[in-house]
Amino acid sequence: MTESVKSVPAPRDQHLRDMANCIRFLSMDAVEKAKSGHPGMPMGMADIAVVLFSDFLKFDAEDPYWFDRDRFLISNGHGSMLLYSLLYLTGYRDMTIDQIENFRQVDSKTAGHPEYRHATGIETTTGPLGQGIANSVGFALAERIMNARFGDNLSNHYTYVFLGDGCLMEGISQEAISLAGHLKLGKLIAFWDNNSISIDGATSLAESDDQPARFRASNWHVQEIDGHDTDAIRNAIVEAQRVTDRPSLIACKTIIGFGFPTRAGTQKAHSDAPGEEEIAGARKILGWNAPPFEIPSDLLEDWRKIGAKGRNARMAWAVRVQTAKADVRGEFERRMKGELPSDWTGAIEAAKQELLSAEKDLATRQASGIVLNHLAETIPELIGGSADLTPSNNTKAKSMIEIAPGHYNGSYVHYGVREHGMAAAINGIALHGGLIPYGGTFLTFSDYARPSIRLAAMMAVRSIFVMTHDSIGLGEDGPTHQPVEHLTALRAIPGLAVFRPGDPIETAECWQAILDAPRQAALIALSRQPMPLLRRQPGSINLSAKGGYVLLEAEGGARELTIMSTGSELHLAVEARAKLQAEGVPTAVVSMPCRLLFEAQAPDYKREVLGGGTARVAVEAAVQDSWDRYLGLDGRFVGMHSFGASGKIDDVYKKFDITTDAVVRAARGALGVRRR
Amino acid sequence: MTESVKSVPAPRDQHLRDMANCIRFLSMDAVEKAKSGHPGMPMGMADIAVVLFSDFLKFDAEDPYWFDRDRFLISNGHGSMLLYSLLYLTGYRDMTIDQIENFRQVDSKTAGHPEYRHATGIETTTGPLGQGIANSVGFALAERIMNARFGDNLSNHYTYVFLGDGCLMEGISQEAISLAGHLKLGKLIAFWDNNSISIDGATSLAESDDQPARFRASNWHVQEIDGHDTDAIRNAIVEAQRVTDRPSLIACKTIIGFGFPTRAGTQKAHSDAPGEEEIAGARKILGWNAPPFEIPSDLLEDWRKIGAKGRNARMAWAVRVQTAKADVRGEFERRMKGELPSDWTGAIEAAKQELLSAEKDLATRQASGIVLNHLAETIPELIGGSADLTPSNNTKAKSMIEIAPGHYNGSYVHYGVREHGMAAAINGIALHGGLIPYGGTFLTFSDYARPSIRLAAMMAVRSIFVMTHDSIGLGEDGPTHQPVEHLTALRAIPGLAVFRPGDPIETAECWQAILDAPRQAALIALSRQPMPLLRRQPGSINLSAKGGYVLLEAEGGARELTIMSTGSELHLAVEARAKLQAEGVPTAVVSMPCRLLFEAQAPDYKREVLGGGTARVAVEAAVQDSWDRYLGLDGRFVGMHSFGASGKIDDVYKKFDITTDAVVRAARGALGVRRR
Repeated sequence: MTESVKSVPAPRDQHLRDMANCIRFLSMDAVEKAKSGHPGMPMGMADIAVVLFSDFLKFDAEDPYWFDRDRFLISNGHGSMLLYSLLYLTGYRDMTIDQIENFRQVDSKTAGHPEYRHATGIETTTGPLGQGIANSVGFALAERIMNARFGDNLSNHYTYVFLGDGCLMEGISQEAISLAGHLKLGKLIAFWDNNSISIDGATSLAESDDQPARFRASNWHVQEIDGHDTDAIRNAIVEAQRVTDRPSLIACKTIIGFGFPTRAGTQKAHSDAPGEEEIAGARKILGWNAPPFEIPSDLLEDWRKIGAKGRNARMAWAVRVQTAKADVRGEFERRMKGELPSDWTGAIEAAKQELLSAEKDLATRQASGIVLNHLAETIPELIGGSADLTPSNNTKAKSMIEIAPGHYNGSYVHYGVREHGMAAAINGIALHGGLIPYGGTFLTFSDYARPSIRLAAMMAVRSIFVMTHDSIGLGEDGPTHQPVEHLTALRAIPGLAVFRPGDPIETAECWQAILDAPRQAALIALSRQPMPLLRRQPGSINLSAKGGYVLLEAEGGARELTIMSTGSELHLAVEARAKLQAEGVPTAVVSMPCRLLFEAQAPDYKREVLGGGTARVAVEAAVQDSWDRYLGLDGRFVGMHSFGASGKIDDVYKKFDITTDAVVRAARGALGVRRR
Repeated sequence: MTESVKSVPAPRDQHLRDMANCIRFLSMDAVEKAKSGHPGMPMGMADIAVVLFSDFLKFDAEDPYWFDRDRFLISNGHGSMLLYSLLYLTGYRDMTIDQIENFRQVDSKTAGHPEYRHATGIETTTGPLGQGIANSVGFALAERIMNARFGDNLSNHYTYVFLGDGCLMEGISQEAISLAGHLKLGKLIAFWDNNSISIDGATSLAESDDQPARFRASNWHVQEIDGHDTDAIRNAIVEAQRVTDRPSLIACKTIIGFGFPTRAGTQKAHSDAPGEEEIAGARKILGWNAPPFEIPSDLLEDWRKIGAKGRNARMAWAVRVQTAKADVRGEFERRMKGELPSDWTGAIEAAKQELLSAEKDLATRQASGIVLNHLAETIPELIGGSADLTPSNNTKAKSMIEIAPGHYNGSYVHYGVREHGMAAAINGIALHGGLIPYGGTFLTFSDYARPSIRLAAMMAVRSIFVMTHDSIGLGEDGPTHQPVEHLTALRAIPGLAVFRPGDPIETAECWQAILDAPRQAALIALSRQPMPLLRRQPGSINLSAKGGYVLLEAEGGARELTIMSTGSELHLAVEARAKLQAEGVPTAVVSMPCRLLFEAQAPDYKREVLGGGTARVAVEAAVQDSWDRYLGLDGRFVGMHSFGASGKIDDVYKKFDITTDAVVRAARGALGVRRR
């Protein structure tokens, strides 16, 4: 039997301890009622939260969207009750005690992990470990970029992030730490819940790192303190703020489940309902007499004061916005609203004109580069970047200036070979507001970034992932670098708009659709290899925004065959159609640059496009899974059935039989089935 | 215009320089001929390779599969020509000069990146950065585990790995470094190609890390040397071997494209054909007169001697194997052949008996734990582990002893919260041979490990990924932790066998199918929640190994309806069938635990199982994409169309309408379409 702990270390300040106990008991009570959850982290980090919120965090519970608020994230998102407790205690209107009592119940705002948009004051969705610390790099970078543009008067806030041992074990944390240190993000302050406990037991089971040394190696300022000593916490934050040329880590030695009689300091405190006995013990140890879910009125009053203490600062900031020069104010307010400049579609049209006048075939990555040249000049909030593939991804617009350590008056980020960290930082930038981030890598490496891409889709933020070299058309680099299953895997993510434009004009249209959807995470897959211009008379309607459309209607009779395609295979469909039409088969070509948007169209439109009752063929240099729903049992697919191969582009397409002839053969097969 | 460099640093030893130049010119010539590839790394690391191969690497080109060879990996796999050059020069029979001349051509052995199984001497597939260093941890750990079991006489070799700046920027490298340092893998020696160049330009564009300090923080021994100083390289390797309680990093300051007149030391050396002029300059600078693809015979002879120098050691080892005690020898030879113990299926049968006698519903993760208890006692080469979710994944069999730093006489690894590093280490263990590794996490976190899972499938090695909490049935942890798109995304990976057993018996059968396929990467998805026993009379045929089968045939007439399902939804199909049969609809239930294996069945079998011509419904608590091929245009799907939600399991299933009633409704819909 575990020995009971009769006491906790005496507090520096009994009032602060009591304030922290409000968090502790709300967390214990909520987890106990839900019979599920993670009390250990909120109980361990409560003292840190109290000091941070009392003396430092710039916020106003009345206006959760105040642009110049400090951002507060918990990367160890399983400790969600810490955040929910703070939101309730400081008076966020939507975080009622009912919500706390309904912790982890369907349709409550208090989900198991903090979910962005579920309640105000939740800055990002966390839970998958390491994401929050990596988001925080994007938040802190966005703040500096906005500061460089609009000055201290309008943008000057900190990003604070709590993180746990698990976050530090995840590789993404290294990418984040390394990038933040390199960029000298001095207003990023991280608190490590150094409790030495993980789910399997002591962290020493799996880990021997000297974390402070690791952070120092990446150019961070590091302090090590007792995470229950409120004076030490306060002093450390002051010092972290004083150091402006490096991000700060405050390594806080804490006791997980601080206050539990038997579970404190053990993995049993991490998760699960503690049980009545354990809570009774905690009450005794922490001197807490209030009933469950009740906060003594004097303490609640003090918490509410904390929630309101930023009001004057917010008012003063609002005055500064009002009194800023008209053009600055106009631009700043536009950015805050997330509206695009009124003339932005002109940039799309100009890009189309340039693309139409190109005298040679272009890869869609090149077309994308041309589109970005136009967009970047019109939309200053575009923040480009690449995971060390800038010349391949065509992500750096001509007018873009590079962001460098300490120099944030730019709009292009060299993210390094850090696809995961890049994607999470992009999420942070998008969540911060005022900027529209995109970043590039090869499509095959979307796998490295997938957990963050998933969260972008879940949060429905305008994170934009630019993925070039999007098929076996990558050629010689071979199967490791050739995406095959990635389009299917990405299209399967709910809410992620996966675009794969089939020519330069579609590329411009896809960018237009992406930018036009502020609550839509998007990924655009682009070819390495050049392909023909198929939309010579594009017109003003954005056909790609419908997701799928009839590129070429059948001629010479009622449509008998529908060939569907995307991207670099679209021209194969067009060529196959020409042959089939010549043979007397009325054949339509459907371009499907974005399945998600197509699925959202009206049923009649979809039926018309897909040619209800016609034979169907799909061609895409990828696996077929995401096409099966349109092919039915009798349709035919031309594409990949295995990993790719290293070789010249044409040789590789031939090897896997993705050719015009193969499409024609498939069409005959599909027609044959129907005619039987 | 770039200024021309007229010279390179003088060599310590002209002969070694000449030996290194063999690598350099083969690499240049191959890249130039292919007009594609990466000459910079082979030219920069050639000196290190020469010293390593001449004086240290234990191998015999005559027997690439010699079990006790040192392993040599290049994590910076784009430098594949370094490896191909070494294989050719040292005399691996299949690596002819023709292969070198056909670098990066379709169906050559010399793919753009090293592909496992394409040629002997390629220990692992690399290219996606960071994978090789993370594989190397598995190799080095496997060696120590085999050593602990079989002693120095039979297993006592080093793992050497080359890596680049890109590898170190990828987060997976941190997971690998941290794990290797923790486990004190003293026979792992890494060489960092510290050339300060990445694709976007100087690494200083994106990175400021003190890499030696970072490695030291993770308990590595670190040396910093001039990577072109052959004496320094030799001394460093000696020292690295002397230090036995820590892995070693040798940070080698190198010049990328060493020998190029204008490109050396710049990002232009990294990739692409250098052009004739650049090669001509290199010939002059390095004093190389042989024609392209020709190695002067004296140098080739010396290289071939290096390739043969391990022969005596190999013979001596073979004698030690022959003269080992009969039981040791028998076990060791069985392990080397990758054969399972003759009585292993008995363990499966025993597990089934235990599962059949369970008096309550079991989650498939629990059933899996029971199966593993039986297997671990019979198959000592099973090496289990979890990414810090041992109690949730049920991955630790009762008999398994934990592996701890310096103590390798066990079979369970606490991988820490490092899903990606775990998966890559598992690949390394599987590639090493002698052991069968598996590791667990939640299915949703397969995303974190996806690049390594993909490589396991591409290499076709028996890496086993145990993924529990495989649907919204995870409940309260909410959408971040509930896999929805993951089954579709994983099934889309070519060659990956994704299993999702539908009851405890199927769980045993799936494990049997997994272990029975030595050239098959597998992932098994398991439920958090208990579910009923559906296979009460399992019989001796492994039905799950067929991938899909008729669990319950239609009764009372010819089959009109087929309900397909997997995993925790299979019992919904069974319950729905009962209702439909009661309504007079002859209904079959098809269980589909592994689509990949089902697809490999004969067409007749598949048609029979799927019920050609019947109405079809599929139910799975996931997105539908991987079912569409069986549903056709008229089938109905019951499953997920969005991310999940936090709540009690039953509430969540109801919220998303994945219930018996929903299946019945869908069935009526599907039947209605057919009857119209």
